[in-house]
Amino acid sequence: MMELESCVPPGFRFHPTEEELVGYYLQRKINSLRIDLNVIVEIDLYKMEPWDIQARGNGEQSEWYFFSYKDRKYPTGTRTNRATAAGFWKATGRDKSVLSKNKIIGMRKTLVFYKGRAPNGLWDDYI
Amino acid sequence: MMELESCVPPGFRFHPTEEELVGYYLQRKINSLRIDLNVIVEIDLYKMEPWDIQARGNGEQSEWYFFSYKDRKYPTGTRTNRATAAGFWKATGRDKSVLSKNKIIGMRKTLVFYKGRAPNGLWDDYI
Repeated sequence: MMELESCVPPGFRFHPTEEELVGYYLQRKINSLRIDLNVIVEIDLYKMEPWDIQARGNGEQSEWYFFSYKDRKYPTGTRTNRATAAGFWKATGRDKSVLSKNKIIGMRKTLVFYKGRAPNGLWDDYI
Repeated sequence: MMELESCVPPGFRFHPTEEELVGYYLQRKINSLRIDLNVIVEIDLYKMEPWDIQARGNGEQSEWYFFSYKDRKYPTGTRTNRATAAGFWKATGRDKSVLSKNKIIGMRKTLVFYKGRAPNGLWDDYI
């Protein structure tokens, strides 16, 4: 998943804070700025199943970071479509603000994966 | 504690494995080879008290890494002197082997700090 170059010495691991994820990585991504080491790859979360994401992680990590676009349910609407071929992602819990210098710079959503189609999807253990 | 240069992108933290600590960092230190970022500084563990070590850590970290020489109790002996001005460090538990490719490259010792002088030192909460 990560393409580490020689510039990061041994012993360093990618454990970003939420502020770094939104304030640095997402910010640069949105502005099409170069991101060193290509540490967060872009995927289409709705073109793959959660078990495929896990398979793409390398053995050492227990967390993975991706960029993915939101897919709209209807071209003119704001509702997001979170269906995959085998199921769908559904928000759970409260959104959490991501702060930088006491300013909200983003929101963290937690999604749970259900197999099948709403509203009768079977909850699966991917969060 | 760490002097991070621009080459480590945001979100990377120093979380080395024991194999990296011994097989890379200690190995280079012993051979007087350059260590990038000076990420492990040299201290004399017996010239300072544990609460001074904690004070030297920066706020973000919960673990610190140092190089320190072993101090011999007697110039000709092999027993180590682990006394500081206020107390002493004492080994606890079993030593743990550090492996690299199934070969033992080092041993990890856990030391506990006692205030006062042996054998009546008071156990203190520094490990």
